[in-house]
Amino acid sequence: MTAEMAPIVYAPIGVIRSQHHEPEKTPIQPVYARGCSGRAEILPQYVEGLKDLDGFSHLLLLYHFHRAGESLLTVVPFTDDQPRGLFSTRSPRRPNPIGLSLVRLLRIEGATLHLSDVDILDGTPLLDIKPYIPRFERVDDATAGWTATVDEETARQRGRRGYGE
Amino acid sequence: MTAEMAPIVYAPIGVIRSQHHEPEKTPIQPVYARGCSGRAEILPQYVEGLKDLDGFSHLLLLYHFHRAGESLLTVVPFTDDQPRGLFSTRSPRRPNPIGLSLVRLLRIEGATLHLSDVDILDGTPLLDIKPYIPRFERVDDATAGWTATVDEETARQRGRRGYGE
Repeated sequence: MTAEMAPIVYAPIGVIRSQHHEPEKTPIQPVYARGCSGRAEILPQYVEGLKDLDGFSHLLLLYHFHRAGESLLTVVPFTDDQPRGLFSTRSPRRPNPIGLSLVRLLRIEGATLHLSDVDILDGTPLLDIKPYIPRFERVDDATAGWTATVDEETARQRGRRGYGE
Repeated sequence: MTAEMAPIVYAPIGVIRSQHHEPEKTPIQPVYARGCSGRAEILPQYVEGLKDLDGFSHLLLLYHFHRAGESLLTVVPFTDDQPRGLFSTRSPRRPNPIGLSLVRLLRIEGATLHLSDVDILDGTPLLDIKPYIPRFERVDDATAGWTATVDEETARQRGRRGYGE
């Protein structure tokens, strides 16, 4: 095994608090979790690093899917009926179950980030916070692979998992 | 320590190969690495998971900043002159040094993903591959925090780290 392939150990920087307690009732993406509020509670030793974050309207949260179950290489996505290669989906059942959510930052109070559009289970360990920087993140000409075969209304109905209905 | 705060162990799913060998000469973001080609070489046991990925033009790569150095809570960003809270930046010197790059997928050959816009050091351990799904990722009304105080030409000159000049 080369050094590049050695295991990597991370420690959570905080925890996500949300209204979602059951995986099967949790919206699958922030776009299907409009109005779902939540919080990121950061450990005291990292609060200094939150400075200047309040100018951003949106954040990218990286977190550990702590209730993902065993990983699979082929999955049926939440919004589709067809089996798909795992890496072409956002399924939590990944070899390294790291979640990525683009949430809205409402305000920061001390060690607490108040968030909206939260599609993350309550109690999820938080690994990193990155600002959503429009000039870095936005692509206008991206093609959508198999997701283009699922119409937006179907994706939305399946993606919300009953939230808001 | 609660279960939520327990250490998390990941194992790389592959490695990034690129033309970048020195951190201080590596473009800081894919938007400043146009034309920089590279590859993601995936371990054989995960190749099944690449199915259906070839329909996407852009991927989100999550990787371990293996040469980031010790973490800091206040940094001077590459594109700015002012010290900023770490989590308001994309600096690699994070408590959990996880990198996120939005790269262009050119083609897939077996276990190799051929990529463009690669701002990642050669030899970087790859943790995850996610498809860039326009309906999930794109925000049209995001505010840019302190990065809005750096004009695009300055950001571009500093962000390219001399690449292409």
